[in-house]
Amino acid sequence: MTNPSSFSVILVEPQLGENIGMVARAMWNCGVRDLRLVNPRDGWPSKTARAACSGAGVVVEATRLYNSTSDAIADLNFVLATTARTRDMTKPVFTPETAAKEMRGRAQSGASIGVLFGKESSGLDNDDVALADGAITVPLNPEFTSLNLAQAVLLLSYEWFKFEDQTIPYELQMPDDTRPANKQELLWLYHHLEQELDNTGFLMVTEKRPIMIRKIRNMLARAQMTEQEVRIYRGMISSLVRKRRPSDAFPGASED
Amino acid sequence: MTNPSSFSVILVEPQLGENIGMVARAMWNCGVRDLRLVNPRDGWPSKTARAACSGAGVVVEATRLYNSTSDAIADLNFVLATTARTRDMTKPVFTPETAAKEMRGRAQSGASIGVLFGKESSGLDNDDVALADGAITVPLNPEFTSLNLAQAVLLLSYEWFKFEDQTIPYELQMPDDTRPANKQELLWLYHHLEQELDNTGFLMVTEKRPIMIRKIRNMLARAQMTEQEVRIYRGMISSLVRKRRPSDAFPGASED
Repeated sequence: MTNPSSFSVILVEPQLGENIGMVARAMWNCGVRDLRLVNPRDGWPSKTARAACSGAGVVVEATRLYNSTSDAIADLNFVLATTARTRDMTKPVFTPETAAKEMRGRAQSGASIGVLFGKESSGLDNDDVALADGAITVPLNPEFTSLNLAQAVLLLSYEWFKFEDQTIPYELQMPDDTRPANKQELLWLYHHLEQELDNTGFLMVTEKRPIMIRKIRNMLARAQMTEQEVRIYRGMISSLVRKRRPSDAFPGASED
Repeated sequence: MTNPSSFSVILVEPQLGENIGMVARAMWNCGVRDLRLVNPRDGWPSKTARAACSGAGVVVEATRLYNSTSDAIADLNFVLATTARTRDMTKPVFTPETAAKEMRGRAQSGASIGVLFGKESSGLDNDDVALADGAITVPLNPEFTSLNLAQAVLLLSYEWFKFEDQTIPYELQMPDDTRPANKQELLWLYHHLEQELDNTGFLMVTEKRPIMIRKIRNMLARAQMTEQEVRIYRGMISSLVRKRRPSDAFPGASED
């Protein structure tokens, strides 16, 4: 099965049904759905796994069972093995990010991809690692590298997902009923505020006035106000001033 | 506390001690150690949390308790709030990756950073989000966005960790007792193999010989052999040939 939008997760001798369920959940969070099990200790299907998948039933229902790692990867073209750092085999070693990039490239060229994860207690054995085209090691705090199975699957699946994710990496979220303020609206706000500050004497030290105004404008500019917020801000200024000088209106100010 | 190598994780009204423990574990995996709790439902300290942290006691022991979100963030300079996608506030919205980048930049300029995570059932309320300088939304499979608390903390902490991680993103792992083969060693191998293939008649079709040799050399080059592996390979060739022609040795071949 060639599917450039997914890869296969192969759990070799997983011990806890709960972890299998949490793996399914982490996979499906990232749109990965082909789960394969090699000799799960507590058998399959598993009620515990079903309960722990928190709604990722689409993965659990389709999970396939195998008697050996070789059988589980027989139809795949490119397989990586997750391991703790070792130096006793000659193999390319990837981080989750570079692995995901490599996997995406190969998947786009038509390869079927799989990643092997070992049992919770001891990981993959060397014979399983030797079947793989490369290794993945998750770089972690050297003082504490104990990562649970579902979290290892999550980190790799998330890196994979990021490569096709269309989410804008950064955006200014904007409610539907407004828009970013334009510079004219901001200038009206600045003039409004500065005139009122002149009136109160806040800007009365002549030689400091330009510096103070720049500071205030910089501060207001950084807020990246919406048109609505500019009206609210001007309303606040008018309101504050009204206490002092109740009859005064100011050009461009909304008084509602 | 300004610590450019860490940030504070603030859990607002977390419900399950087990999740607090798993959060501590995910944090410490990534070298993040300042955990703050605002009104945890089941109280604090928590034996369940202690059991679930799997060795990240350094985080659990130092966890601090607060009565309100405002108290918990009072000493911080830059705070982000994790939320599901909403469009009812004007706020910068980051992905975990861009958030981590922003946080690193600000931490390096001396700011203390914190990230708010809401309760498992319903996330942060709007008043808590309003206290933050920006929001973080984790892009996920739109069909299945239910991410557990510890996994949300892990994804952000891992992105943070990656920015200072010194791990080589890709490397060819090399045992200590060998080194990459040099080109001379590879050429000797090619010549050895090609001469033996000439002897067996494998390369006898003259017009196809150069193409076949290029294919074989490409295939061998891709393996990026070590010096040790080249010797093993030549030993295999010699061994295969010996059956046919037992007395023959070949220049440069190791016979041991």
